[in-house]
Amino acid sequence: MFIAMNRFKVMPDKAAEFERVWTTRESHLDAVPGFIAFHLLRGTARDDHLLYSSHTLWRSRADFEAWTRSEAFRRAHHDAGANRPLYRGHPEFEGFEVIQTVEPPREPLSATGTGRPG
Amino acid sequence: MFIAMNRFKVMPDKAAEFERVWTTRESHLDAVPGFIAFHLLRGTARDDHLLYSSHTLWRSRADFEAWTRSEAFRRAHHDAGANRPLYRGHPEFEGFEVIQTVEPPREPLSATGTGRPG
Repeated sequence: MFIAMNRFKVMPDKAAEFERVWTTRESHLDAVPGFIAFHLLRGTARDDHLLYSSHTLWRSRADFEAWTRSEAFRRAHHDAGANRPLYRGHPEFEGFEVIQTVEPPREPLSATGTGRPG
Repeated sequence: MFIAMNRFKVMPDKAAEFERVWTTRESHLDAVPGFIAFHLLRGTARDDHLLYSSHTLWRSRADFEAWTRSEAFRRAHHDAGANRPLYRGHPEFEGFEVIQTVEPPREPLSATGTGRPG
């Protein structure tokens, strides 16, 4: 798995507008091969900004890179320039390879069939 | 949902050891209330370090904070000091609230019951 994050330093008085723009946009991600999930993240407040980050899970780095060359990507970023006054500087991109995953043990769906109520 | 990340600036010649320490540790997270998933992430190489990040999904910030006050947390971090020579400075903590999630539409498990092969 691969995680692509873009960090935004949002001006405190623009935070509500930044969230509105993101949560109402048309991402066109649903149908992109290898797309697993997108999260918009709100981080902690600093002196002159609020940290936000987009956070997208991909099956692989190759899937992410294929998306950045796609028509869906161009459409999703068509209006990105219009939002520039909401945050300081450029968003900072960081890509991560997932090298270990730990999850709670799942409930067995059908074990021996004994001891099950009903 | 809440994402807790700790960023580590690992010395390039210590990367293999850093990964070994993390991937073989006993995290004690499995049974912690509100724990959803842990990922160890490898980021891009910089001039003098390789960026790594621990990445833990929690049901809520309150669940994360309760864990930091728990016995499981103390046990998981018991040997943390011993790993200090593997990275520069202190790990940098960042906590994020998930304020939007986008996922691909799921396959309906049982729709009308018609048109299903078999």
